[in-house]
Amino acid sequence: MTVKNRLKDYAREVEGYLRSSLKGKGIPAGLLEAMEYSLLAGGKRLRPVLCLCFARMMGAPAHAALPFAASFEFIHTYSLIHDDLPAMDDDDLRRGRPSNHKVFGEAMAILAGDALLTEAFTLMTASCGDIPADRVMQATATLARAAGAAGMVGGQALDMAYTAKAGVSLEELREMQALKTGALITAACVCGAQLAGADAHGVERARAYGQSVGAAFQIVDDVLDVVGDESTLGKPVGSDEQQGKTTYPSLIGVERSMDLARRHAAHAVESLALFSGEEADFLKDLARYIVDRVS
Amino acid sequence: MTVKNRLKDYAREVEGYLRSSLKGKGIPAGLLEAMEYSLLAGGKRLRPVLCLCFARMMGAPAHAALPFAASFEFIHTYSLIHDDLPAMDDDDLRRGRPSNHKVFGEAMAILAGDALLTEAFTLMTASCGDIPADRVMQATATLARAAGAAGMVGGQALDMAYTAKAGVSLEELREMQALKTGALITAACVCGAQLAGADAHGVERARAYGQSVGAAFQIVDDVLDVVGDESTLGKPVGSDEQQGKTTYPSLIGVERSMDLARRHAAHAVESLALFSGEEADFLKDLARYIVDRVS
Repeated sequence: MTVKNRLKDYAREVEGYLRSSLKGKGIPAGLLEAMEYSLLAGGKRLRPVLCLCFARMMGAPAHAALPFAASFEFIHTYSLIHDDLPAMDDDDLRRGRPSNHKVFGEAMAILAGDALLTEAFTLMTASCGDIPADRVMQATATLARAAGAAGMVGGQALDMAYTAKAGVSLEELREMQALKTGALITAACVCGAQLAGADAHGVERARAYGQSVGAAFQIVDDVLDVVGDESTLGKPVGSDEQQGKTTYPSLIGVERSMDLARRHAAHAVESLALFSGEEADFLKDLARYIVDRVS
Repeated sequence: MTVKNRLKDYAREVEGYLRSSLKGKGIPAGLLEAMEYSLLAGGKRLRPVLCLCFARMMGAPAHAALPFAASFEFIHTYSLIHDDLPAMDDDDLRRGRPSNHKVFGEAMAILAGDALLTEAFTLMTASCGDIPADRVMQATATLARAAGAAGMVGGQALDMAYTAKAGVSLEELREMQALKTGALITAACVCGAQLAGADAHGVERARAYGQSVGAAFQIVDDVLDVVGDESTLGKPVGSDEQQGKTTYPSLIGVERSMDLARRHAAHAVESLALFSGEEADFLKDLARYIVDRVS
């Protein structure tokens, strides 16, 4: 089976969980509709799949980490809803559909994001009966730090500051992206390891893989904004340039960007050299696939 | 010592913790400034004080619950920042100062709120070394549920829906306020009990007290918006009426509203009849004080 199909298989498992995750919880109807509109809009489910695969690869029971893994998609989705707001990136399209605030209005979009972020922590803490509390606790702390002010939100703050600024350096861009998208992708891998009760070495391998895959993923995303097509992206091509954003291609060109992405992917594969089995094979293939999807 | 002074003493303890809570964490400077602007803008620190007092009254070591208690102020503060946004209540003043978005702009205000909400969970999970992980876990789940889509955020969604609607009933108002402000106040009491390892009866007493105090607090808040003065409120008097909000006074008048608030306060005092000692005395006095502050 191709890596693309295996990714779809894992994603389907996450998808099933996401579909049932908000039902019967006493959420006011209008708010629930706005939350599910964005949560169930498709997407690769990359972060939950990473969390799930690392947990399994390092010895957790097959489905034990599923609620925790799903919480990554809650957090990723909230960040997209808030990033699209008029006061932020002001994007009208997301995953090929009108963005949340275009359908439900700004106020509801803010609340839907707030609610998804908060419910992520309900999932993490209330739904992991099969995993010892101290591990869930440790993983919850990892995720909170990665998503917070010195992680994803901090990265978005830097992104806004840099969008208004001329002459952003490669180092500034690298640091901003490491926070904005890298932190959560890395946390998905690390949390999987922590939920499985991995030792320090295992956690360190998960971190190395996550950082490399996260960096490769973001560089490729920048490149696709230049060379991709709208139907694949789900948003207009060239939106980074239009918004005056500094990207890898704008600083070092498409070719050198892709070289860099390939080196990151190779490093991700090396990080897991000592692991074998179904999940390890998939994770290694996935790192290569993230870069290959450009051509 | 008067209850007002004891409240100030407890609040000072929380304040000290809040002041140091974001330093040296690697938060980008602009974001940190916006977060601290609202977090350190004063206020009664009611929710952290409730959490701390319940934890102590039910046997937790004196300072063990402080980080968790402080996280309530992070969440309360984020909710105020987002509620004040132009797309929501569009309030220019908060605690007597320009609201967050008036100083830092809408985008940064959204991010500061997101960051405070997320950092609350870092505090909860990463800073409670003196309390067993299973208790912290349980309390974290309690707080996440209370703050989320079927709690505080759900209440804000209902508030917005009701603001646009004529003929909101007393029952609808009660339910909306129970979610919007009651859920978090109740959770502060319940989490204190859970962190102390209280049995089911103790947790139930904490919940009963919290629900009653929360209801009394919100009714009095509605009344103060009619009869209070701007310097005490930190915002213009009559803003509820101006925004077309249904309140207790607008439905049943000031006098009957205050009767109802007094009954809730009396019920809160009764809930703790079996508890004694410094914290129990304070909590009982506090319930009465919340209502007495009107006259």
